[in-house]
Amino acid sequence: MHMLKKIDLALQLGNDESEALKKEIDTLGARLTALQQEIKKAGIPVMVILEGWGTSGKGSLIGRILRYLDPRGARMYSITQPTGEEARKPAMNRFWLTLPAKGEIAVYDRSWYHDWMTIGKPWKQKEIEIFERQLTDDGYVIFKFFLHISKKEQKKRLKELESSKNTAWRVSGADLHQNKNYETYEKCFENMLETTSYSFAPWKVVSGMKRKMALRDVLSEIVTRMEDILAKVQAEGKDALQKQGTLPEEMQFQMAPQPKLSEIDLSQEMSDEEYWQKLDELQKELLGLTYKLYRKKIPMVICYEGWDAAGKGGNIKRLVSGMDARDYMVHPVAAPTSEEKSRHFLWRFWKNIPKTGHIAIFDRTWYGRVMVERIEGFATEKQWKRAYNEINEFEQELHDWGAIIVKFWLQIDKDVQLERFTERQNTPEKQWKITDEDWRNREKWDAYEVAIDEMIENTSTKVAPWHIIESNNKHYARIKAIEIVIEAIKNRLAEI
Amino acid sequence: MHMLKKIDLALQLGNDESEALKKEIDTLGARLTALQQEIKKAGIPVMVILEGWGTSGKGSLIGRILRYLDPRGARMYSITQPTGEEARKPAMNRFWLTLPAKGEIAVYDRSWYHDWMTIGKPWKQKEIEIFERQLTDDGYVIFKFFLHISKKEQKKRLKELESSKNTAWRVSGADLHQNKNYETYEKCFENMLETTSYSFAPWKVVSGMKRKMALRDVLSEIVTRMEDILAKVQAEGKDALQKQGTLPEEMQFQMAPQPKLSEIDLSQEMSDEEYWQKLDELQKELLGLTYKLYRKKIPMVICYEGWDAAGKGGNIKRLVSGMDARDYMVHPVAAPTSEEKSRHFLWRFWKNIPKTGHIAIFDRTWYGRVMVERIEGFATEKQWKRAYNEINEFEQELHDWGAIIVKFWLQIDKDVQLERFTERQNTPEKQWKITDEDWRNREKWDAYEVAIDEMIENTSTKVAPWHIIESNNKHYARIKAIEIVIEAIKNRLAEI
Repeated sequence: MHMLKKIDLALQLGNDESEALKKEIDTLGARLTALQQEIKKAGIPVMVILEGWGTSGKGSLIGRILRYLDPRGARMYSITQPTGEEARKPAMNRFWLTLPAKGEIAVYDRSWYHDWMTIGKPWKQKEIEIFERQLTDDGYVIFKFFLHISKKEQKKRLKELESSKNTAWRVSGADLHQNKNYETYEKCFENMLETTSYSFAPWKVVSGMKRKMALRDVLSEIVTRMEDILAKVQAEGKDALQKQGTLPEEMQFQMAPQPKLSEIDLSQEMSDEEYWQKLDELQKELLGLTYKLYRKKIPMVICYEGWDAAGKGGNIKRLVSGMDARDYMVHPVAAPTSEEKSRHFLWRFWKNIPKTGHIAIFDRTWYGRVMVERIEGFATEKQWKRAYNEINEFEQELHDWGAIIVKFWLQIDKDVQLERFTERQNTPEKQWKITDEDWRNREKWDAYEVAIDEMIENTSTKVAPWHIIESNNKHYARIKAIEIVIEAIKNRLAEI
Repeated sequence: MHMLKKIDLALQLGNDESEALKKEIDTLGARLTALQQEIKKAGIPVMVILEGWGTSGKGSLIGRILRYLDPRGARMYSITQPTGEEARKPAMNRFWLTLPAKGEIAVYDRSWYHDWMTIGKPWKQKEIEIFERQLTDDGYVIFKFFLHISKKEQKKRLKELESSKNTAWRVSGADLHQNKNYETYEKCFENMLETTSYSFAPWKVVSGMKRKMALRDVLSEIVTRMEDILAKVQAEGKDALQKQGTLPEEMQFQMAPQPKLSEIDLSQEMSDEEYWQKLDELQKELLGLTYKLYRKKIPMVICYEGWDAAGKGGNIKRLVSGMDARDYMVHPVAAPTSEEKSRHFLWRFWKNIPKTGHIAIFDRTWYGRVMVERIEGFATEKQWKRAYNEINEFEQELHDWGAIIVKFWLQIDKDVQLERFTERQNTPEKQWKITDEDWRNREKWDAYEVAIDEMIENTSTKVAPWHIIESNNKHYARIKAIEIVIEAIKNRLAEI
């Protein structure tokens, strides 16, 4: 409890208008301007957040920092209460969406700490830690500043603002409440700073008693740390900031083990009659259940992975036939765009998290990281190895938020794939479904099988288990998938 | 007044369960599935909207249509009340954001007619017409269906829904109000259908009395029209759907004429002393004024265009120094991404419209269409010629919504550009600012000058006039730009 206390606010009561200070700021500002170009060249994504007491000068300080930055590559976010839409997504969702691309700088006036700097609000500490750790593991640089002022100074500033008609509106009830209960807030802030000053994203408390000195201190911290980081990247190469992260053997998740692919029996049969009858019954049942989810505002995430030609498309089609088109959205996942490639790999999936009461169906998913990206070398070994843990954390976060998660692996054997490929090749209306890439992937079947077995072993958690769907027989596979979705919904509804 | 009346609802009371009808639907559905692939290949963006009476079966009909579509290329939007965020943007903004890419299909359950199908709400008829016209001019295909049922049928369906606990929640107060006041709504809908059944985007009223027949009618309309359109594209080539649009000589805007570039005197001087003094004063004044905009929720759009090295970046920097970083956002505009290129050219700018009370500053703008895209041939002649009118309509829409619009052209002469290019080339910290492209553009100076003169002549409207800023002297240019922004704000504040 002394990140705030150890700052001697009285010490800072020097001359804020000295020429020397102005010069120092000018020099630091010019260095920041130059550094931004190097950051861009090195492709480092940077996030700078400013928290602090009301009236501590966050806004004007950010304005000053932005002046040193080329707006083509810098973006500022003002964080307030989540909107109605945002409140229906996981708490960290809206912050994931703000991620800067490689080489860009995002500056935050308030941040993901905003919601939890109000006394009495529950802390999303675990989620914040995961957010900052996953990003810094991936080479993001995060600066966290806290602007500190004394109770007396805050009171003085509030009075000044209130004294003029032009500024009185800027004083909020929250600011006044803060000043009145300064000591309580101070404890709350101390606690936040201590708990969340991670080695990978430490807090820097800066005295906000004098505006120019505060600016100098913030600039100086950014410039010094960025210069160190750039030197490291220069010396060790592009991937110097990539961290090992948490490896599978260190993960702490309760698992729901599944068999290896080679152990799966694929000989199931299903008569046409049985198929049509069951399909009709199950779709009707599913419709009723999804309406219940909608009314109870329970979100659901359904993931489809499987071999090429395993029948994902047809399976999804039959599943959604038992849903109301207004409740679900199918997200086909193709190769990432350049925008997506230049951010953390989970970014593009956070963009498609459903709101409460809705269902998101992913046709291919974030598991591409540990399959195609691993096999094709699009992800480094560090990246795909730590992805198991990142994915488990991601799914745990969705679970904790309240989502039902169902993950399907559609399993077929190599002969059936060949049959289906050949049929597609020979049927004019189906030719669009088959590409050279499919044939190339097929040649790597064995490597993929190793990767898939590892994936299922490492990510079949209790809260988001894999379901292997035997799909040599498409009818059987479709019925089984719908049954699993129905069961997952029933289980959740039984809990509440 | 007879788009609804001419539909004989009684005629449709035939057998909805006949085998022949089922077969017809299956055939149409299969054709739609195949057509989607052709639409994709031909790169045609398609929008299908479904409006209609409450309980007319829009939702389930859309669900059925979606089953025939590959989700990789089809997206469904459920339109309800605008969120708080959306309500702070121009009314059509949220619909612009949903535009499908070339070859994709967007299906809407309710649409941009949603807000105006409630009795008593003001109509955004002009905005809707512009939206649909601009899109169809650019090759979008828009289907507009209205599902019609009788008062008696609606009453029956509402009662059915209410009778079961599982469905009663689906009956809204709005539905009941509609049924009670059926005749009034009917007049309102007739009026809407008549007024907005444009030749380029006509309404098709479909009887919703029998669900399968309605599905058949909708599928049939889509399949028939799409086959015609595809045949046309096959015969006439990719640009067959591009329309001439409204040409400059047909535009109906009040203009605020400006001199030609060659007539501009660029000999201004400004002493350092005068510059620093004015800059400080003006920035302070601007800060106060932007706070007023914020409080009165007036949005502002500031556009910067100008020759390479005319000093846009530095000018913007000094302008925003007189603003609160929380109120403005600078949007640097580079070459469009592939996502942006495959949609109407205004799409990417609609994404960055500020919310009320905020300021958006565009560093390069939608005027790229009639400059670089024209000169380099990225836009066809049809496209850039009709862009003058599209842009004027766009800016008029922002104005009508309440935005202050300020457009700057930063003018320098060819010698000054050469000086600045050379200086950039020879100064290591500035080399990133100069590219081969800049030199290539310079060679086309004369062609650009023709395009710019035409641009200013055609788009300097009274509501969004161009301001030519003499920028050989950077100090002079910065002061003049801030003064113009201040004046624009004062003028607006004086009006209210």
